Amino acid sequence: MAKSDLGITVSKQEDIAQWYEQICLKSQIADFGDVRGTIVIRARGYYMWEQIQAFVNEQIVRALNVDNCYFPLFIPERFFVKEAEHAKGFAPELAWVTTSQGEGGEKAIIRPTSETIIVDNMRKWLRNYRQLPIKVNQWANVVRWEVKQTKLFLRGREFLWQEGHCIYQTQEECEADVKQVLSLYEKLCSDVLALPVFAGEKSPMERFPGAKKTFGIESIMPDGKSLQMGTSHYLGQGFMEAFDVKFMGSDGQEHYPHYNSWGVSTRLLGAVIMMHSDDRGLVLPPKLAKQKVVVIPVKEDDVEYANTVAASCGAMLDDREGYSLGFKLSDTELQGIPLTIIIGARERETKMATVKARDTGEKVQVPVADVPSFVHEQLEQMHTRLFEKAKEWMDSCIVDVQTQDEFEVQLQAGKTVRAYFSGDETAEEQLKERLGITSRLLQEAKTPGVCILTGKKTQTIATFGKSY
Amino acid sequence: MAKSDLGITVSKQEDIAQWYEQICLKSQIADFGDVRGTIVIRARGYYMWEQIQAFVNEQIVRALNVDNCYFPLFIPERFFVKEAEHAKGFAPELAWVTTSQGEGGEKAIIRPTSETIIVDNMRKWLRNYRQLPIKVNQWANVVRWEVKQTKLFLRGREFLWQEGHCIYQTQEECEADVKQVLSLYEKLCSDVLALPVFAGEKSPMERFPGAKKTFGIESIMPDGKSLQMGTSHYLGQGFMEAFDVKFMGSDGQEHYPHYNSWGVSTRLLGAVIMMHSDDRGLVLPPKLAKQKVVVIPVKEDDVEYANTVAASCGAMLDDREGYSLGFKLSDTELQGIPLTIIIGARERETKMATVKARDTGEKVQVPVADVPSFVHEQLEQMHTRLFEKAKEWMDSCIVDVQTQDEFEVQLQAGKTVRAYFSGDETAEEQLKERLGITSRLLQEAKTPGVCILTGKKTQTIATFGKSY
Repeated sequence: MAKSDLGITVSKQEDIAQWYEQICLKSQIADFGDVRGTIVIRARGYYMWEQIQAFVNEQIVRALNVDNCYFPLFIPERFFVKEAEHAKGFAPELAWVTTSQGEGGEKAIIRPTSETIIVDNMRKWLRNYRQLPIKVNQWANVVRWEVKQTKLFLRGREFLWQEGHCIYQTQEECEADVKQVLSLYEKLCSDVLALPVFAGEKSPMERFPGAKKTFGIESIMPDGKSLQMGTSHYLGQGFMEAFDVKFMGSDGQEHYPHYNSWGVSTRLLGAVIMMHSDDRGLVLPPKLAKQKVVVIPVKEDDVEYANTVAASCGAMLDDREGYSLGFKLSDTELQGIPLTIIIGARERETKMATVKARDTGEKVQVPVADVPSFVHEQLEQMHTRLFEKAKEWMDSCIVDVQTQDEFEVQLQAGKTVRAYFSGDETAEEQLKERLGITSRLLQEAKTPGVCILTGKKTQTIATFGKSY
Repeated sequence: MAKSDLGITVSKQEDIAQWYEQICLKSQIADFGDVRGTIVIRARGYYMWEQIQAFVNEQIVRALNVDNCYFPLFIPERFFVKEAEHAKGFAPELAWVTTSQGEGGEKAIIRPTSETIIVDNMRKWLRNYRQLPIKVNQWANVVRWEVKQTKLFLRGREFLWQEGHCIYQTQEECEADVKQVLSLYEKLCSDVLALPVFAGEKSPMERFPGAKKTFGIESIMPDGKSLQMGTSHYLGQGFMEAFDVKFMGSDGQEHYPHYNSWGVSTRLLGAVIMMHSDDRGLVLPPKLAKQKVVVIPVKEDDVEYANTVAASCGAMLDDREGYSLGFKLSDTELQGIPLTIIIGARERETKMATVKARDTGEKVQVPVADVPSFVHEQLEQMHTRLFEKAKEWMDSCIVDVQTQDEFEVQLQAGKTVRAYFSGDETAEEQLKERLGITSRLLQEAKTPGVCILTGKKTQTIATFGKSY
């Protein structure tokens, strides 16, 4: 209860950053860590992460025959300089270890991502083509010493994620898995998080350092900014060459494998919370809610009956003493419990339960005998409602534009703008400097068109917008 | 396959340290990390850890209503100096962060354990007695910059563990959970790891820094040394006072809660591997083996039939081309696959499968139709056999002594010696300096006796021995 008594004091409309922070803190999802940029993930938040882990372990790791492993937190500095693009990309955010035994010797870097150390291990394991593909994944914490303002879940100096790393004989197999994983991440977002996303390829400027191609899924937040939800990279053979990872092919020749990596992180928690919650508190898709149903007895006389109802549908009973019904109802909303069942004298008499849905606030009278099936159905419907609402929002945010004028006007209005774009790095750099806007994701267009930034002919179309 | 082709080249008897390292590396359980003292946990090893996680999550975390959470990797230095004993105990092994953005400000320590940061968060959450108990657990990596020689799983600079931290209104409740957790750890060892342990309380010298009482379970390794397998601490109110964690009691007064913490780590993997394995390679209790059964066809003609047998019992088929039957059988032993089924011409003709058990090496002929039930039964029996064998070993290592002479003779002979011991710190320090031996665990004796070290009357009895 501590510190949540007051409820949310800023509206989502008014100041989304403040509102989001209050939701995370007051709904007991997270706390600030004491070292700046770190986070405490509380029980209700960690439960969400466990559901994401379960999906990824079942539907990606096991389905694609990936092996969960664990690689060290510490990476020798010499690994980090081997792949030039990668080294350059991560250099500003690196942290390393100092000990009470003095430094001496090589710097041990705290992993910001594990490509280098995993690839170096694959070098030790790999001999011939029969061993390929090698597919590993790890669940781990990573550290990036962010200079920018940090935000709970969305940008932090330490976060949790999974990182898959796989090597293959051929580019085709490798790229096929890159896309397969991306589509499974999309499924994770829709089926577990109730979040629609748009998918595509990153522009050269926005690629992962060291990748040949980066694919991503993004969601549009209530403030119109895009949030990257997951990425899947085709890294080609660059890391293989840099780390000398080779195999003897069936042709008796040495070859470099093709490499991909992919990940989602606790950032997803931030997306879910920000998208679905409202001014009364947390709103979660039921699958992510640790407590899905609560039964509140109006008075002490109602406790016994309420308890029967709770037991019938596996709900929690809120029989805390010394709190009013009003307080309990607000608290339930703040905590984002999907369904609240109220049992008072009238309900006992009529054998009807009053069931309130967190997202719509609607109350329905349900015969007590039907509560278990009603609850089950309602939880599923709530998931669909949340997804549909977020989808409507996303669709309303994206506008197609043809002209330079429209492009600027819509971007200034905070829209995510879709236009032909060739992927030109210089042009995108200039756009970023001028408006603080980058391309989000590129997709192949059905017909060729004219690039909105360079005027050149192109077959790709891109979304542009502000991002987290 | 890479690097395992040669098999184990040192015997367990001859050089257990070398043998153990070869088992870990060649059975593809682990690799050395590149920063000294770190470890790569490979698929087969990580699978073992996932089974331990599943047991702890189900039988401890959920059963005792503990909440999984996540706390930051980085702890402000000022937290570490608050509890004096704790600070002193961990000071020599601390590592902290340096960044490319320069130091500036307070040191961020990389957690060696999380008492300080978790307790400080509890301070923020706790207001009144209605919120108690608060029980949290985290699965995390921890860092201790060991000066001593590191060993795969048994002593490392980074390892994985779970750490439970709970606070209660009363000492009774708190201590009851300390003991409950210890007995569940014992169950984890017997039911999952097939390892017998002895349990008891640590002497004052061997207590966790900051604890009032430390309880532990230990196992005796094949070289006669004891290995600590899990600990559960009653920390009293010291941390509560140091961090000002208080609650308003039902009596309207402020009180300090009572605190416990408990954990098991990836060290358990080292214990299992060292205890059960042999000179031919890895031996695992079946629950910890990622592949439990393999079917090997003798010749190409046997593949189809072998495949049918494999499918009937959910086994893996080893139909790799270009490897001899002899190689495959050795490889299966090296990898610690509990059951190997051999299918050749004779087996096809007689509709009998040859089933070989990894631990005993015994081969049995089984009608093909009975394979699924036989496999199921055999895997259970193997678990029991491994446990019984380890139990016999443990029992043979512990000797009761009455006199100072016997005490020294048996210790020199490498035995774990049981004798009356008062827990006297000075006497134990002297013993440690003189023989490199400490008390392992203390238990209450049925009748009083005379302390082997001080000659004083005491009601406690202790095991003494070398330890990892």
